[in-house]
Amino acid sequence: MILELADIRIHPGQQAEFDAAILRGIGSVVSTAKGFRGFKVNKGIETPERYILQIFWDTLENHTVDFRGGPLFTQWRAIVGPYFAQPPVVEHFVLVGKSD
Amino acid sequence: MILELADIRIHPGQQAEFDAAILRGIGSVVSTAKGFRGFKVNKGIETPERYILQIFWDTLENHTVDFRGGPLFTQWRAIVGPYFAQPPVVEHFVLVGKSD
Repeated sequence: MILELADIRIHPGQQAEFDAAILRGIGSVVSTAKGFRGFKVNKGIETPERYILQIFWDTLENHTVDFRGGPLFTQWRAIVGPYFAQPPVVEHFVLVGKSD
Repeated sequence: MILELADIRIHPGQQAEFDAAILRGIGSVVSTAKGFRGFKVNKGIETPERYILQIFWDTLENHTVDFRGGPLFTQWRAIVGPYFAQPPVVEHFVLVGKSD
């Protein structure tokens, strides 16, 4: 399983609307994608307009090829894109270790 | 519960040693800290010397005051600090939503 981590900056003062939009976008669009395995969204304390979106995919290509190259990406960006103050910084990661 | 997210860059070529060191440092030092609730470590695919360390704390002060201001921080940094190519970028987050 692969972790996609997106470091997102939104326009100041739109936190409440973005909280709802990102959850709606994941629930209605991203969660239907091939290889989607789960997600987590956090928002910043020191930097309130910063969000960390973590999405778990079966394979790297499920995100970079299947999702980004298909129609779901357009639908997703239509929901969350208007809030972005700049392009999100997105990279992929593998697990080294965790508790539990 | 509060998420500490540390964006870490290590010296190239030391991944295997750092994998072991960060898990040893968490297991022997950080996990004994007041308010520690769990952790997760991931390493980069596109950027192999990039690590994302997530630590869950009961309160923000458990990390910023109790841990950073006490002797455990010195022990932790003695284990992982030599691998750092630059100071980690650390901020704190609250949960917006997640699957499961």
